[in-house]
Amino acid sequence: MTLRLGVIGTGAIGQDHIRRITDSLTGAEIVAVTDINAAQARAVVENEKINAKVYENGHDVINATDVDGILVTSWGPSHEEFVLASITAGKPVFCEKPLARTAEGCKRIVDAEIAHGKQLVQVGFMRRYDKGYRALKNVVDNGKVGAPLMVHCAHRAPSVSNFSGDMAITDAFVHEIDVLRWLLNDDYVSAQVILPKNTTLADKGLQDPHIVLLETKQGIRIDTEIFVNCQYGYDIQCQVVGETGTANLPEPLSVLLRSEAKLSTEILVDWKDRFIDSYDTELQEWINSTVKGEMHGPSAWDGFVVAVTADACVKAKHTGEIVPITMPERPVFYDKFFVLQ
Amino acid sequence: MTLRLGVIGTGAIGQDHIRRITDSLTGAEIVAVTDINAAQARAVVENEKINAKVYENGHDVINATDVDGILVTSWGPSHEEFVLASITAGKPVFCEKPLARTAEGCKRIVDAEIAHGKQLVQVGFMRRYDKGYRALKNVVDNGKVGAPLMVHCAHRAPSVSNFSGDMAITDAFVHEIDVLRWLLNDDYVSAQVILPKNTTLADKGLQDPHIVLLETKQGIRIDTEIFVNCQYGYDIQCQVVGETGTANLPEPLSVLLRSEAKLSTEILVDWKDRFIDSYDTELQEWINSTVKGEMHGPSAWDGFVVAVTADACVKAKHTGEIVPITMPERPVFYDKFFVLQ
Amino acid sequence: MTLRLGVIGTGAIGQDHIRRITDSLTGAEIVAVTDINAAQARAVVENEKINAKVYENGHDVINATDVDGILVTSWGPSHEEFVLASITAGKPVFCEKPLARTAEGCKRIVDAEIAHGKQLVQVGFMRRYDKGYRALKNVVDNGKVGAPLMVHCAHRAPSVSNFSGDMAITDAFVHEIDVLRWLLNDDYVSAQVILPKNTTLADKGLQDPHIVLLETKQGIRIDTEIFVNCQYGYDIQCQVVGETGTANLPEPLSVLLRSEAKLSTEILVDWKDRFIDSYDTELQEWINSTVKGEMHGPSAWDGFVVAVTADACVKAKHTGEIVPITMPERPVFYDKFFVLQ
Amino acid sequence: MTLRLGVIGTGAIGQDHIRRITDSLTGAEIVAVTDINAAQARAVVENEKINAKVYENGHDVINATDVDGILVTSWGPSHEEFVLASITAGKPVFCEKPLARTAEGCKRIVDAEIAHGKQLVQVGFMRRYDKGYRALKNVVDNGKVGAPLMVHCAHRAPSVSNFSGDMAITDAFVHEIDVLRWLLNDDYVSAQVILPKNTTLADKGLQDPHIVLLETKQGIRIDTEIFVNCQYGYDIQCQVVGETGTANLPEPLSVLLRSEAKLSTEILVDWKDRFIDSYDTELQEWINSTVKGEMHGPSAWDGFVVAVTADACVKAKHTGEIVPITMPERPVFYDKFFVLQ
Repeated sequence: MTLRLGVIGTGAIGQDHIRRITDSLTGAEIVAVTDINAAQARAVVENEKINAKVYENGHDVINATDVDGILVTSWGPSHEEFVLASITAGKPVFCEKPLARTAEGCKRIVDAEIAHGKQLVQVGFMRRYDKGYRALKNVVDNGKVGAPLMVHCAHRAPSVSNFSGDMAITDAFVHEIDVLRWLLNDDYVSAQVILPKNTTLADKGLQDPHIVLLETKQGIRIDTEIFVNCQYGYDIQCQVVGETGTANLPEPLSVLLRSEAKLSTEILVDWKDRFIDSYDTELQEWINSTVKGEMHGPSAWDGFVVAVTADACVKAKHTGEIVPITMPERPVFYDKFFVLQ
Repeated sequence: MTLRLGVIGTGAIGQDHIRRITDSLTGAEIVAVTDINAAQARAVVENEKINAKVYENGHDVINATDVDGILVTSWGPSHEEFVLASITAGKPVFCEKPLARTAEGCKRIVDAEIAHGKQLVQVGFMRRYDKGYRALKNVVDNGKVGAPLMVHCAHRAPSVSNFSGDMAITDAFVHEIDVLRWLLNDDYVSAQVILPKNTTLADKGLQDPHIVLLETKQGIRIDTEIFVNCQYGYDIQCQVVGETGTANLPEPLSVLLRSEAKLSTEILVDWKDRFIDSYDTELQEWINSTVKGEMHGPSAWDGFVVAVTADACVKAKHTGEIVPITMPERPVFYDKFFVLQ
Repeated sequence: MTLRLGVIGTGAIGQDHIRRITDSLTGAEIVAVTDINAAQARAVVENEKINAKVYENGHDVINATDVDGILVTSWGPSHEEFVLASITAGKPVFCEKPLARTAEGCKRIVDAEIAHGKQLVQVGFMRRYDKGYRALKNVVDNGKVGAPLMVHCAHRAPSVSNFSGDMAITDAFVHEIDVLRWLLNDDYVSAQVILPKNTTLADKGLQDPHIVLLETKQGIRIDTEIFVNCQYGYDIQCQVVGETGTANLPEPLSVLLRSEAKLSTEILVDWKDRFIDSYDTELQEWINSTVKGEMHGPSAWDGFVVAVTADACVKAKHTGEIVPITMPERPVFYDKFFVLQ
Repeated sequence: MTLRLGVIGTGAIGQDHIRRITDSLTGAEIVAVTDINAAQARAVVENEKINAKVYENGHDVINATDVDGILVTSWGPSHEEFVLASITAGKPVFCEKPLARTAEGCKRIVDAEIAHGKQLVQVGFMRRYDKGYRALKNVVDNGKVGAPLMVHCAHRAPSVSNFSGDMAITDAFVHEIDVLRWLLNDDYVSAQVILPKNTTLADKGLQDPHIVLLETKQGIRIDTEIFVNCQYGYDIQCQVVGETGTANLPEPLSVLLRSEAKLSTEILVDWKDRFIDSYDTELQEWINSTVKGEMHGPSAWDGFVVAVTADACVKAKHTGEIVPITMPERPVFYDKFFVLQ
């Protein structure tokens, strides 16, 4: 059985997903697309040589009778509307981050999904599908470093354009928020943000770097350096310190060079190269589980938790205080697939 | 268009290929299978839940009208027969190594393919599809270490069972023979084999390790340690030494651990884990190019060259001498796709 | 000219220094010793075959006419007394940490030294003499990572016995306090201490690990994990993050092993092995500069700053608050040799 | 007791040794020097501010009554004469490599020393004193990789000037000849030399690189790449492959940098930096053992074996053949101190 998909939003990430589903993955095909820019949607269908109908709007895609599942890759503020409509239509929906513009929006999706009675929503947090993070989780889950006590992370990018305000948290750090609670099987209880000396190499007025400190229910302490103008590369670091040892996220595979008085491996510069395989795995696993009527990836609840946590981090940044992170108990509805193994 | 494939031989590697084509790759499906053990072939069809007909023998698979291409994964000595029959039928054929039992057998396939007039044969040398080797070739081709002068390799396995005679060369080293001439865009002119002190941990009577020295047309010198009872792991090493630097095949991705007074990464133990992704890439690229009527991978000619070179290495081992490697000029027929980029 | 030294305290560290000065270093000899346990002092003289007179007490050593310089390696609480007496006698004195039991005690030494008019006191912070830290400082000072913005450290020991209360700060972290301000040419303005989930493998009642956060005058943020029951080894980590790159303290030299499915280097277990060469360099440079009438190492002022900072860290630990670190301006007297290059 | 030394030859290496004995090492002083250029000898005495008499020639230094031991750091062809004279005088002598111009010359020294009846001669092979080689030997001797079967080495320098003929063997590879038989507690039985494609970046007419293959009595096979115009750095590699694992000579300590899209450590460029600490250790240990009337370092016999082996390598290079290495049995005289532990 081939899963017939409709894509809402044919911008960069929408096109990437269309290409990977069409050329690299198995088990699904794109049969419907739409974009706020209709001409672009038509061009994508033509360029990618896919046999898909171009619809007027997202709701028409969702309601098309030959569409089995939805990919929401449109402008962020429109996500909530299309995810809710997909739930109403009873169709599985894969939504790129953010799930909604606000924590409240995420909560409305959670409530709608529970009311519907079947898990339909997956959020596009792709790090859980990265080979490196999976290897790290495997090592930690197997007790190779003992019970985790601390996690030291770095989230570095060579430079950013059009970054402003709190995007270091809402756009970059959200990935750590999701992947670390998955890695630790834990949730957060407080956040603090430290503002180190600013780099002179960032856009004027932009605070960079940040250090975010999170505390989990178990008492594990996480410190993450977010430095989005670090110049030297796109570099994601994660070290779990357990009672008996430490484990680091693997460095991406690279040729070891001896050249010009240096023993070196390459550090990636473009973030797209870092998690490119993860996107493939993420969507392939989503297709496979969707075909079986299951849902294993980051849930609407996970999207909600990330939003609540990010809000607390932003508040902590602006107040300089240790901000408690409070949210309702996880509904039993989400228990089954909380941990992706 | 979906490529309809027939599989001759449903042993371990045959089943692996059936699974990956069915579950992971895109663009092909298994429609026909056969095995010398018919019951096993039927069981595989059933277990894998594929919609494939079980045939009496390989020739029936080759000649089935709904079969577009052939996978030869049967017992080695039967390869030549089925590859020749595929050529006769004008159907693309992917043949696991060895292409034929002897260099003469390989040459018969080369001649048949040329006579047929279109390249149809690909040999299963999967290392060319390994991310690490491709990254290494990329570095070398881009001049990052200058013109290659030497290559130092190691081919190590923890232990082997049922290894005898010259299998270190004919079963293990053949992979280096293929991948190094692809890496260097070069061919071999002589071979010498050195027999170091034997490990006491190999089966009685088995020479282990060997060091094989190859010289290329350009004068590049290759030394390869083959050590198939090295105990500690499955470990493939390759260092290219150029005029301005050296480049190493990347180590497989692994979590860095600090534990028990050691800073360590894991070394694989099972050879299957080392090149598992390469098999996927190899077959996906074969499917993609076959659908387009092209052929880019290791050719029948490459299979022939490997056989001639392996023969020279075996002779060098038994004589202790430097054995010249001679073969006819590469037919123009194979020029087009000699280098896989 | 040979520097004639008197040693006050012939316990473990005292004996080590006597041995290194006698057997490995050049330019000095031990001519006087004393210990609260006179029999032990006599035994040391005998065992080490040194030509030294055993004195009744530290003051007699300090005042002996053939003694040019003093090593204070006695019980911590006695340091202040002997250092002050050495200043009174106008003799150069090398004092193991702590310089005094309290910040006030350190300040009295500073005041006495300034009143005396010549710098005579060096404190035994040996990390500044470690090849690794010196290489790191060289890289940072040469701008290889741009202006420092953050420093991430770890101070880990396999286990401790008889550790209690705040010793993680007063006994272990003091080394970071000294070496990081030397590394950064900076001073501290605030401290915060975070208490992660406790390891179950520490002595009952002992908090372990700690995370100490320091802020410098320039706004550089330092986070240090102190984990003295980490089980796996004695491991000192330091990463400076600058505007254009990061630099790590080198790992100690170790053979790279491939064995038992691991690619590994050794991590030290005994702290003595980690800085053993630093002690040699520290004392040799102290001898050399003392002979020239100079003083380049960690000064009495540095000892005072460490004490003030450690006090703030202890307070931060107990209050959970961000504690300001305030101290008088550095007296001009100490300007000359503030930075050891 | 201070060892009073006479230095014959005050060129670069002679001056280095004078400086280290005077400023860094303990237990010896320079009391006599000479050089074929008397003015230079006088200048060295003055510049280094040492209290040494300048003699007319080497024999006068050797025979000076206040000279306890001799350092021969003169022009290579003069070594044999001064070493023989030292033996005649019954004085311990440390001779920089080569021990003599020919194997026959080395043999004459061996014979003279045996006739004298006490071991007096040490040859300046400093690699045995390198921390890295000692750590490697420790690992191998402790069975961490099982019984050695093969050794893979590289001896690379960025470029050489005034290198000609067989100097890659007689000037560079001699260090491997000495250190590997010490490392393996073994001797050589045959040599073969392979001439890879020449680098275009060497002086005209100079063969570079070479690969030298040695076989030991135990059957261990050693391959060493000698590449003295490798451009990228001074890089000494050594990997011992044993029955259960492999062990690599440690890389020199270096800061790990993340900068400009590279994760890198530094490779040394100047050979002097690589073994600078080894010279200190070598001479300190020579002083210490000489004072005790002992001799533990590379002996006259070791110098002779290196000369015989180098001759065989040169012959192998010119003939392209596998050249047997034959020499008399090691005299019992040298048994005691054969292995430096």
